[in-house]
Order: sequence, then structure tokens, then C-alpha cells
Amino acid sequence: MIRPMSDLPYALVVDSPLPHAAAVARTTEALAAEGFGIVSTIDLQATMKAKLGKDVEPHTILGACAPPIAYQAITVEEGIGVLLPCNVVVRGRPDGGSRIFLTKVDAMLGLVGRADIGPLADDVGARLEAVRQVLRG
Amino acid sequence: MIRPMSDLPYALVVDSPLPHAAAVARTTEALAAEGFGIVSTIDLQATMKAKLGKDVEPHTILGACAPPIAYQAITVEEGIGVLLPCNVVVRGRPDGGSRIFLTKVDAMLGLVGRADIGPLADDVGARLEAVRQVLRG
Repeated sequence: MIRPMSDLPYALVVDSPLPHAAAVARTTEALAAEGFGIVSTIDLQATMKAKLGKDVEPHTILGACAPPIAYQAITVEEGIGVLLPCNVVVRGRPDGGSRIFLTKVDAMLGLVGRADIGPLADDVGARLEAVRQVLRG
Repeated sequence: MIRPMSDLPYALVVDSPLPHAAAVARTTEALAAEGFGIVSTIDLQATMKAKLGKDVEPHTILGACAPPIAYQAITVEEGIGVLLPCNVVVRGRPDGGSRIFLTKVDAMLGLVGRADIGPLADDVGARLEAVRQVLRG
């Protein structure tokens, strides 16, 4: 049994007994149930092998986007695409399970320094917290 | 002539007279010259049209990754994928030109709260500043 990891300053953390591929599928489903589509998928394991010849554990960055919220965000803050989408990382572990890291939205959007972005951040943050609870169950 | 925009707390900003597609191509070339490959491309204009039926200007999020630096980062900080890759946003403007926003790496990696990430952030930050200078030229 791996000791659960605390949240990070920039990420919610949840451990799953599912192996990497199954954890990616379950995470994608849980995100969809909260209104997030996956707009980008980065396979870091394949990238590291192809570019550096290095072997790393399965490691996927999912870019999660809730379109109505993203639309509001890009309408009010011209450069906010730099902070989009919300990344959710699924990283395989030596015990065969996975560790999942979800963007801590308040930290990320806090970089914008605008109080009127707060309600959008709260909305997205609550959805990602709900996703974490599903993955924990 | 559009008034140049100051940098944002989270992004370097540079205006280009190039239209969106040409600006994406030139940005991609400038990133490659500094060691960045593009590991994700998100077409926000297409996403907003498909998901919401909304028309927005051409708007692309390029995910830029320098593999040797990313490898070091994921080796020392397990959850850092949440903050990867470095996004570079190219947004079309009403005058036919483009505005380009590049991740301000020190702000982003400052969220990690680890002094030993500093040299990696400085390295990536210097490369993105060099990209900005090329795009300004």
C-alpha cells in the first residue's frame, strides 16, 4: 500500500489502484460527467522515448476544457489561453496503480490577478474537486 | 496601428503584423530554433464553433516542450506535468495581425514552491524570451 500523497500547491492529488490506461479512461469519464471535454492528450512516455531514448513510466497529460467557461474566460481576459486547458495528469506507479494530479484552479487563475475571474475559477475548481472525489471512490 | 500591450503577470506579449496562420508558422519555427517541439495544438476557434456555435477569432494554443528540460522536471517533481507544456497562444486580431502570448515561466513554476526548480525555470524562461525577440523582429 502506497502512502497517499498530500495535495500540492498547484495540484489536487489522488491515488487510484487502476493501472495507467484504465485510470486514463476513468478520469476521462469523470471529467465528462462534470462538463469537461479532452482537447489535448500528451503521451509523455512516448515523447521521452522518441526524443531522448529515455524510458519513463506511463505518463499522460489530459487537457480538460469546459467550453462555456473557457468562452467566458477568453472573452474577458485576452491572454488567458496561456493558462488553459486545465491539465489532469495520470502517472503510472511501480505498484501497478496510478497517481492522478488535477490542476488547482485557484492557484493557476490567481496568476491573472483579477477578482472578476474568481467566480469562473470557483466553478471550475468545484468541478475538478468533484472529479477527484469520483476517482477516490 | 494597435497600441502594443504590456506583458501580463503570467505571459510575455508580442504583437505581429502576420495574420494568424502565418504567425502560428513563424512562432513554431522560432520555438524550434530554441529547442521546443510542439506536443499539443488546440484550435479554440474550432472548439468554440463546434461545442457552442460561437464565432471567435482564430485562436490557437501551442504546447511547447523542450524534452531534456521536461525530463529533468518530471524526474524531480512528480506532479509537474500539470504545469506542462509551456503554452504559446496565437490570437488573431481585427486588424488582420496577431497577438502572441508566451507563458511566463517564472510565474508558472513559482507555483511549485521549490528553489531547486529555479534553474530549469530560468533556462526555459530565457528561451521563451528569445522567441519573443524573434517574433518582435
